[in-house]
Amino acid sequence: MSTYTAIKLIARPEPGPVEPDIFEVVQKEIPSAGPGQILVKQTHMSLDPAMLGWMSPDPESYIPPVALGDVMRSSGLGEVIESNHPDFVIGDRVMGLMGWTEYLVSSGEGLNKVQPGPDAEAVLSIFALPGLTATQGLFGFGDPKAGETIVVSGAAGSVGSIVGQLAKAEGLNVIGVAGNDEKCEWIVSELGFDGAINYKTADIGAKLTELAPSGVDIYFENTGGPIQQHVFDRMNAHGRIVVCGMIADYGKEIPDAGPNWIPIIKKRLTIQGFAMPDHFSQVPELLGKLTPYVMQGKIKYRAHVLEGLESAISGLNLFFTGDNKGKLIVKL
Amino acid sequence: MSTYTAIKLIARPEPGPVEPDIFEVVQKEIPSAGPGQILVKQTHMSLDPAMLGWMSPDPESYIPPVALGDVMRSSGLGEVIESNHPDFVIGDRVMGLMGWTEYLVSSGEGLNKVQPGPDAEAVLSIFALPGLTATQGLFGFGDPKAGETIVVSGAAGSVGSIVGQLAKAEGLNVIGVAGNDEKCEWIVSELGFDGAINYKTADIGAKLTELAPSGVDIYFENTGGPIQQHVFDRMNAHGRIVVCGMIADYGKEIPDAGPNWIPIIKKRLTIQGFAMPDHFSQVPELLGKLTPYVMQGKIKYRAHVLEGLESAISGLNLFFTGDNKGKLIVKL
Repeated sequence: MSTYTAIKLIARPEPGPVEPDIFEVVQKEIPSAGPGQILVKQTHMSLDPAMLGWMSPDPESYIPPVALGDVMRSSGLGEVIESNHPDFVIGDRVMGLMGWTEYLVSSGEGLNKVQPGPDAEAVLSIFALPGLTATQGLFGFGDPKAGETIVVSGAAGSVGSIVGQLAKAEGLNVIGVAGNDEKCEWIVSELGFDGAINYKTADIGAKLTELAPSGVDIYFENTGGPIQQHVFDRMNAHGRIVVCGMIADYGKEIPDAGPNWIPIIKKRLTIQGFAMPDHFSQVPELLGKLTPYVMQGKIKYRAHVLEGLESAISGLNLFFTGDNKGKLIVKL
Repeated sequence: MSTYTAIKLIARPEPGPVEPDIFEVVQKEIPSAGPGQILVKQTHMSLDPAMLGWMSPDPESYIPPVALGDVMRSSGLGEVIESNHPDFVIGDRVMGLMGWTEYLVSSGEGLNKVQPGPDAEAVLSIFALPGLTATQGLFGFGDPKAGETIVVSGAAGSVGSIVGQLAKAEGLNVIGVAGNDEKCEWIVSELGFDGAINYKTADIGAKLTELAPSGVDIYFENTGGPIQQHVFDRMNAHGRIVVCGMIADYGKEIPDAGPNWIPIIKKRLTIQGFAMPDHFSQVPELLGKLTPYVMQGKIKYRAHVLEGLESAISGLNLFFTGDNKGKLIVKL
């Protein structure tokens, strides 16, 4: 009998960095696919900032928390190794919510087949949550127009890097905000952003004024933190703010205050929060919008690959430190 | 030669209550209507919170500030007493931006004829800026649905009182926030709000939980101030926040901080600021929407009438103290 490894959530996290003892690593016997089922061997697991929210009960969240004792939730890519399901054959590549586990049995519901072509890292970095989120946020809510200026926080992150490249392809002036010089260099020289701001070292206000002399039309917010007020103060009339992430505040006991609302009236701003699970029914259209940019070579990515299932535990804390370089992926 | 009185803005206001010395009261000779012009005798002038913004230069405002030395801007109701204009006859009632003046000569542009029927107070309280603003804000951005809960701040004010009555007519659970018990009593017993909160004396959070047990779907924000965070914390998923006024912060050197943005994502909120001048082209549709409610007797109002042009100067400060009871109107 062969066994495999899975990781269960057994306690709720405290604010701040994730402690390893909220997880339990378990060994299980590899099951067989029952009638109508498939057995999937997961090959690559995606780590996403949204996971930090999934671990805590919050009646207002868009998705129920992971129950204590359940395998931790995550999306991933895998290969069908047994199939009693008419729609799947052995060797199919599938993607979907698989969880922190090396193997899973599934009815196939919620799993999508992935066509041959892009490698696993590209699939999880572009065509999974990051690319879908970037496309929905920018085009569904940001209403980008050539010649406008967009500021993207978390610009070297999995979502922000794609938002900026999509905006650049649409002819916008694109300014990225990131937390170290290496990331700033990467988004400008590799991804083609027009400018970058290291929020930890720059005079943020002065730098924004320099890079966005005509003000900001779209603010794509992935982080919160000190950049927020500076961008808010520079929004143009009828500006759009798309709120996708607030990673700077997720780990805080008491989150920072936000900007006063007077500019919301003066500039008639629209602020729209969103979470991708509300838009899963739009995935085909979103892929239809995103794929041509990818085919034209306009969307680059880099993956930060961790090795082995258990690396996911400490890997989560890279979201707080920002030490990851690119999309976090766990290779199994 | 007869003379009339007008009031010019001669200095910019400091934050806080308006000092009378920023105005100059002048006597002028009553002019005659030139070719193609009309001479209007203003009978009723509207005082609106937006005026506080019009006195200060702000490159980001939706409307240029009143130039120093110009007659102070305001909307009002008047009577045509001379006409060399083919579309107007003596005795026509007209409404529009007339300014702080007893008489004005106009080309007729921007002035609209008012049909006989409603008295002057009703015209300025319902069919002018307050009613148009309430209708645009609630229906254009609030997306009200029967059975939902709306919280209206500044609920006894000229806009808030109409928003609440429109929402009630649409079948919503309507909660008003006001600054004294008399206003709270009025909006519940006279206007039919389902509940009221005196933000100066109530335990705001507890009272909101009691009056909105299922959370808040729409927040119509006229004031800012301590109510804001409490309502924000209780917004339901996909809630809409319509930001129409921030009177609590207009007079402050440093406006209060706003709420942290995490709930914007968790609840996928939409926050929309607006100012009526962006929507003047929609006035016919807005009146078409509003008028049936008025005809059905569903929109009550009360006017707080000041006597004489010069009463406008100290009248402005009633917006800061909240001591006015109803729509502020200056009778000339």
